Amino acid sequence: MTKYLGIDVGGGSIRGSVIDEQGNLYLDLSVKTNPESSNEELIDSIGKLIDQAEEKETFDAIGIGTPGPINIDEGIIYASANLKNLKNTPLIQGLKSKTNLPIHFNNDSNCASLGEYYFGDNSRVERLFVFTLGTGLGGGFIYQGKLYNGLQGNGMEVGHITVIPKGAKCGCGQLGCAESYFSTSGFLARYKDKTNKTLSDAKAFFDLIRAGDEDCKEILELGVEAFSDCIRSVVHLLNPQKIVFLGGISQSYDLFGKSLEEKLGQKIFPVLAQTINYSVGKKLAGSFGAASLCF
Amino acid sequence: MTKYLGIDVGGGSIRGSVIDEQGNLYLDLSVKTNPESSNEELIDSIGKLIDQAEEKETFDAIGIGTPGPINIDEGIIYASANLKNLKNTPLIQGLKSKTNLPIHFNNDSNCASLGEYYFGDNSRVERLFVFTLGTGLGGGFIYQGKLYNGLQGNGMEVGHITVIPKGAKCGCGQLGCAESYFSTSGFLARYKDKTNKTLSDAKAFFDLIRAGDEDCKEILELGVEAFSDCIRSVVHLLNPQKIVFLGGISQSYDLFGKSLEEKLGQKIFPVLAQTINYSVGKKLAGSFGAASLCF
Repeated sequence: MTKYLGIDVGGGSIRGSVIDEQGNLYLDLSVKTNPESSNEELIDSIGKLIDQAEEKETFDAIGIGTPGPINIDEGIIYASANLKNLKNTPLIQGLKSKTNLPIHFNNDSNCASLGEYYFGDNSRVERLFVFTLGTGLGGGFIYQGKLYNGLQGNGMEVGHITVIPKGAKCGCGQLGCAESYFSTSGFLARYKDKTNKTLSDAKAFFDLIRAGDEDCKEILELGVEAFSDCIRSVVHLLNPQKIVFLGGISQSYDLFGKSLEEKLGQKIFPVLAQTINYSVGKKLAGSFGAASLCF
Repeated sequence: MTKYLGIDVGGGSIRGSVIDEQGNLYLDLSVKTNPESSNEELIDSIGKLIDQAEEKETFDAIGIGTPGPINIDEGIIYASANLKNLKNTPLIQGLKSKTNLPIHFNNDSNCASLGEYYFGDNSRVERLFVFTLGTGLGGGFIYQGKLYNGLQGNGMEVGHITVIPKGAKCGCGQLGCAESYFSTSGFLARYKDKTNKTLSDAKAFFDLIRAGDEDCKEILELGVEAFSDCIRSVVHLLNPQKIVFLGGISQSYDLFGKSLEEKLGQKIFPVLAQTINYSVGKKLAGSFGAASLCF
C-alpha cells in the first residue's frame, strides 16, 4: 500500500495527514504556527512535522498546500495574508535539506480542488471546476484527472474575472472583479460601503440575512448576479460537467444556491446548461487535498 | 512522408488541400457550393472533392472544418448561418460510406487556432490562445499541443463571456456578451443603434474610422474596453503565453492594438502580463488548419 503525507499550512497551524489513494487515514498530526513566523521558522516547523510523521509512519511522497501567491516551479511562497512575515520563502529548497522524499507543492485552493476530485462524491469527471468561497474567491480546474496549473500555479484566478466594468475596488487593485462581489472580503467591503458599519466575518453577514436585514439581502443579490456572470464565463470557456462549491460561504448555499442556479439556467447555452451538475462539496481536511498532489 | 487532406467548408466553396506536417502543399482543389445545399448535397459535394483528391494524391487521413454549431463526438453540423438549409447534418456518418480513411472534424474557429499552432510564427507554446475576429468573436485554446474541445467542441466560446451586465443584445439572445462589442456583427449593430444607419461590413466600419468618423471611433473605444475585460478573464483563467488575433478585423490591428495592449498591461496581473506575447497571425488557408486536426 502506497501512502502519502499531505501537509496543509494555515495561519494558525500546520496539519499533516498520512493517507492512501482511497483516503484511508493512517496518521494525523498538527503543530501550531506563530502568525509572525519568518521564512526559516515556517520551514523549520514543517520540517519538524515531517520528522514526527516519519518516526510513526512510512510514506513515499509529500504534498504541501500553502496560501499564495506562490510559484510552484520554483517552490516559493511569494507572500501570505495570514503569515505576514513570509517573503519569497524558499519552501521546497529548504525542505529538501530535511527529507529525501519527492515533494509536490501547490496553493491551498488548487489542493482543495484536487481533493474534491479524488474524494468528493462523483467528482471524477473529465472537466471538474471547483469554486473556493472563502476570504477570497478562488477556483481550481481538474482536466483529465490533472490540476490545471497555468503559469507557476496561477491558473484559474476566477476571482479576478471582471464582472462589473469600473465597479468596486478589489484587493488586487483593479475594479469590478468577481471577488469584490462574492467572497467574504467582498461582502464585508460592500456592507461597509453601504452602511459604514463593519462586520467581523461571513457568518455575521449571513446571520443578518437570516434575520431579514435588507442591506445584506441587496448585497447578496448583487453578488449572486455578478457571480452568475463569472460562472457563465468559466462555463462558456471550459464546459465543466460538474461545478462544486467549497469554503465557508458554501455553507450558506441555502440562501443563494437556488437563485444562482436559476440565473445560470437562463444565461448559459442550453447545450451546456443541461449537462452541468452543481453541488456543495463536503468538508475535507486541507491535508487530504495536499496529499492528493502525490497521486 | 505522411500527407493529409484538409477540407475547409465555407458558404461559397469547399477547399481541399493535401499537405504534410511541415505545411508543404501537394494538391489544392476547390468546388463551389450552393448556399441552398441540403444535408445530402453538402455531403455529396465533399465526397466528390475527396474522390478528386484521391485520384491525384495519396494521403492517410482527412481533417474537416465547418461552421458551427457542431457536435464533434457525433460528427454532426447542427446548423450554419451561411448554409441555411443544413440541419443536424450527419457529416461524418455520410462520408464514412464514401471513404475508409480516418476523418477528424471540428469547427472552423478551432481549426484556425490549431493551424496557427502548427504554422504560425513561434506559436508552439504550451498555452496558446487564438481569437478569431470575424462576423462573430471566436476563440480556440491549444494546450500542450492539443485543441481544448470541451463538450463536443463547444469549448472557448469566448464571444459569450459577459462583459457589460444588462448590456447590448447579442445574437445568442443574451445581454452584454463580448461578441456584441467586438466583432463585425457587434460593430455594425452598435453603429445601427447609434446612428440608425446600416453598414455593409467591417471594412466599411474601419474605413469610417480612418476617415475620422466620431461615432465609429466611440464604438471602437467601447469595444476595445469590453474586449480587454474579456481577454483579462481568459488570461486570469488560462495564463496563455501567447495570444494571436486572426480574422478580418485583425487586419485593422493598427487602429486598436496599441490601445488594447495598453489596457491589458494595466488590468492583468503583472506576473502574467509580463510574459504574454500578442500578435496578429498571418493569413492561412482554412484547409491547412483542418488538415492539422490529423497531426
